[in-house]
Amino acid sequence: MVEPRITSGLRDYLPEDMIPRQKVLDTIRKVFERFGFLPLDTPAIEQEEVLTGGDPNFKMSIFRTSVPNSPQEKLALRFDLTVPLARVVAQYPDRIKKPFKRYAVGPVWRGEKPQAGRYREFVQFDADTIGSSDMMADAEIIAIMYETMTALGIPNFFVRVNNRKVLNGLAEYAGFTPGKSSDVLRTIDKLDRQGWRAVEEELAMDEKFNQLGERTGGAALSSSQIEAIRAFLDLPSGEELLDEVEALMANSPIALEGTEELRQIQSHVRALGVPDDRWKIDLSVARGLGYYTGPVFETVLTDLLSIGSVFSGGRYDNLVNQFSNVSVPATGASVGVDRLFAAMEQLGLVERRTSVADVMVLNFDPSCRTKCQNIATILRRKGIKTEIYIGAAVTLKEQLSHAVRQDVPVVIILGSYEAEKEICKVKNLRTREQIEVPEADIVSTIDNILLR
Amino acid sequence: MVEPRITSGLRDYLPEDMIPRQKVLDTIRKVFERFGFLPLDTPAIEQEEVLTGGDPNFKMSIFRTSVPNSPQEKLALRFDLTVPLARVVAQYPDRIKKPFKRYAVGPVWRGEKPQAGRYREFVQFDADTIGSSDMMADAEIIAIMYETMTALGIPNFFVRVNNRKVLNGLAEYAGFTPGKSSDVLRTIDKLDRQGWRAVEEELAMDEKFNQLGERTGGAALSSSQIEAIRAFLDLPSGEELLDEVEALMANSPIALEGTEELRQIQSHVRALGVPDDRWKIDLSVARGLGYYTGPVFETVLTDLLSIGSVFSGGRYDNLVNQFSNVSVPATGASVGVDRLFAAMEQLGLVERRTSVADVMVLNFDPSCRTKCQNIATILRRKGIKTEIYIGAAVTLKEQLSHAVRQDVPVVIILGSYEAEKEICKVKNLRTREQIEVPEADIVSTIDNILLR
Repeated sequence: MVEPRITSGLRDYLPEDMIPRQKVLDTIRKVFERFGFLPLDTPAIEQEEVLTGGDPNFKMSIFRTSVPNSPQEKLALRFDLTVPLARVVAQYPDRIKKPFKRYAVGPVWRGEKPQAGRYREFVQFDADTIGSSDMMADAEIIAIMYETMTALGIPNFFVRVNNRKVLNGLAEYAGFTPGKSSDVLRTIDKLDRQGWRAVEEELAMDEKFNQLGERTGGAALSSSQIEAIRAFLDLPSGEELLDEVEALMANSPIALEGTEELRQIQSHVRALGVPDDRWKIDLSVARGLGYYTGPVFETVLTDLLSIGSVFSGGRYDNLVNQFSNVSVPATGASVGVDRLFAAMEQLGLVERRTSVADVMVLNFDPSCRTKCQNIATILRRKGIKTEIYIGAAVTLKEQLSHAVRQDVPVVIILGSYEAEKEICKVKNLRTREQIEVPEADIVSTIDNILLR
Repeated sequence: MVEPRITSGLRDYLPEDMIPRQKVLDTIRKVFERFGFLPLDTPAIEQEEVLTGGDPNFKMSIFRTSVPNSPQEKLALRFDLTVPLARVVAQYPDRIKKPFKRYAVGPVWRGEKPQAGRYREFVQFDADTIGSSDMMADAEIIAIMYETMTALGIPNFFVRVNNRKVLNGLAEYAGFTPGKSSDVLRTIDKLDRQGWRAVEEELAMDEKFNQLGERTGGAALSSSQIEAIRAFLDLPSGEELLDEVEALMANSPIALEGTEELRQIQSHVRALGVPDDRWKIDLSVARGLGYYTGPVFETVLTDLLSIGSVFSGGRYDNLVNQFSNVSVPATGASVGVDRLFAAMEQLGLVERRTSVADVMVLNFDPSCRTKCQNIATILRRKGIKTEIYIGAAVTLKEQLSHAVRQDVPVVIILGSYEAEKEICKVKNLRTREQIEVPEADIVSTIDNILLR
C-alpha cells in the first residue's frame, strides 16, 4: 500500500475550497474579457533554454524534466506565463496581429521554499498587451487590477505603481556604479516589509559573493550615497511627488523619462475611472523579475500587507527580443491566484460551499427509481443542477440528512405513494416547507423556489 | 538569441483556437455541474510512487521531475486525473463525504509517441462518483457522455459500453489460462480499428517477451480457443445480445455477473433519457487501463472512427485500495479535450473567432483620449466587452481596418467633431450602418445592436 500524500509546497483544493476558488477564476476571466483580452493557452512544459533565455547564470529555481527516454532534450516546467507569451509572439509572427491583448491562466512552478501563501505549484492569471508602447496600455493594466479586485469583493486594497526608469536613474543621481543597481533595487524593494533600518544596513554592508562569483547581498554604498537614496524614498507621496522627483533627479535623463511616463499613466488611470485612493505612486516598488524595463505595478491588501503583492506586473519591452530580431514592446500583470485565495481565506472573504447542486432527488423506494431518473433528467435539461441520491443510505430519513449536510437547497421525495398520485413532494430545505406538486409542474415549482 | 519552439507532442492554442476551445471547456463544465458533480483540483506534480502504485513493473511512460536541489524525492507529472482522485479519497477520509461526485479538469502528461490528435500534454475533463457500487452511478456516467456530446453540438456519435467482468469470463469460457487474459483483451480492443484478420493473427502468434521478461505480444491461443472468441465477438448486437452472451458463457460465473450489471445499466440509461441509437453494448470494448473492474465506456465519433474514443471510462473498484485499507467503489469517465477538439476541427465543427470584444473604441484623435477611456469604462462596467485601440495605426481608416480584421462587431468613433457635439458615432460592422448617438445613450444603443 502506498501512502497517499503530496510533497510540501503543493496544495489540494477539495470542493468546499474549489467551489469559491472557481468563482474567483471565473470572475477574473470575466473582467479580463471585458477589457477585450483574448485567451491563449500554451503547454506547461517548455524548452529549458526558452525559460532561461539561454542565460548560464539563470538563477530562478525551476523544475526540470524531459521526454521519457529522451533525456538529451532539456525541458522544464514554466515558472510564469510571460516567458511563454514572449516565445509565442516570436514563434508565430504572422498569426499574431498586434496590438495583441491576451489573457492566460494556468499553473506555474517554482522551487523556492514554501511559506504561508507561497506554493511551489500555483496558478497565475495574466493579462498582457503586446505591441504597444503607449502608456495607455500600462494604465489599462492598472485599471484591470482595480476592476478585478473590486469584482472579487475585496474591500481594502491598493495598487502601487513605480517606474524602473526612475529607479535606474538612482545610480546617476546617488553616484554609485551602475553594476550595483540591481542589488540596490532588490534591497529597496524590502522597505515595505522590513523597514528603513534593515534596508540601510544592507545597502551599507560589504558586497558578498558566493563561490560562483555571484552577488548574494550588500552594496557597500557610502553614507552619502545612502543618504541620497533615503532622501529619494522619503519624498512625500501626493500630487507633487513627480515634481519633487524631477527636481531631485534633474541630473538623470533616464529618471526624467520615467517620471514623464508616470505622468501619462496618472492621467490615463484617472480617465479609466480608478479612484485616487485605490492607487498611488510608490518609489520603493521595484518588483523582482529582471525583465521589467518601465512602469511596474503591484497590488497589496491593506489588511494583510505581510502576504505581499497578489497582482503584479510591469512593462518588459526587451523580453520578446530574446527570441526574435524584432523589438516588441509589452506590458502586463499577473494575479497570483493561490496567494490571493489564501489571503481571502484569511480575511474571511471565502464562502465555503459543500455542494453545487440545486436539487437532490431522494431514491429510497426501489420501485420508483425509473421515475426518479426521469424527473432528474427533465430538471437537468432545463439547466437545474440535480443530483440523484446514489449512496449507501436506504431510508428516506438518512438520505434527507445527507442532503441537509450537503447543503442542497431543495429535495424531491418520490416513493410509491407519490408515484401513484402522479405527484412529487418538494421540500425547501432553507424554509423547511414541503409541498405536493403534480409531476408536470415540477420545473416551474423548482424555478420558483430557486428564484431563477 | 534562443529559438522560439516547443517540443514535439505539445501544442499552443492561439486565440482563434482557444476561444472555441474555451467554449468547449465551459460547456463540459456546465453539463457536469448539472449532474451535481463538484469541482476538485489537485497538483500536476505527484509522488512517483503514488502514480505507479509502487508497482516496479509500471509500464506507462511518465514525465519525471523533482524539487530543485532535492533529487532524492521522486516526483512525476500525473498521467491522468483518476489516480490523484483515488489518492485524495484515501488521504482525506474525514473531509470527503460519500457518495462523492467530483469533476476535475487539467493537463496530464504521457510520454508516448505523438500521433494525429494525440499529444504528450493534454487536458482531461473527468467526472467520477466515489462510494457507490450502484449501477445507477455508471448509467449516470453514460448519460453525462450523451448530454455532453449533445451540448457540444456533435451530430454523429455513440457510446459503446461493455463490462470487464464479461471479458474476464473469456478465459473460463474459451479455456485459456487466466494469465493470458490481459493480452487477449488488449488484442480484442483493436478489433474496431484493425479488423478480425489482424486480431486473429495476433491471438495465434507465439508469445513474445522483452529482455525484462515482460509480454510484448502474442497469446499463442489454439484455433479452437480463437474460434470460441470469434463466436463471442460475432454475437449480433441488439435486444437479445445479453441473452445470447448468457447462453454462450453459462459456464462463467464472473461473466454472468457482468451481464447482470449490463442489464441494470440498460434500464437506467433509458430512464435517464439516452436514446437507444446513441449507445450500444459492444463486446469488443476493453479499454486499456489496468484499473477497470466492471463496466467500461467509450465515445466514438461516427464520422471519424480512426481518432478513437474521445470520452471514456469505467468502474475501478480497487484503485482507492492502493492507498487505503478501506475498499471504495468508484466509476467515472474522462473527456480527452484536445483529441476531441482536434476531431471537432477536422469535422468542421469549430468556429474560429479572432476577438472576444463586443466593441472597439477607436483612438485616432489625441485630444479625445480621455473621453475614449471614459466611454470604454462606462461600457465595461455594464459588462460590455470593450477594447480601446492602442496600436501603432494613427488614422481612423487604418484603425477601422484593424477592427474589421479582428471581427469586432461594433466600433465607436470619437474625435473632436463628436466630442464638441457630445455624441459618439457608432458603427455596426455587421450591417455597415453608422449612427450618431448622444453620449448618454451609448450603453442602450450598444445593447440594442448586440441584442443583449
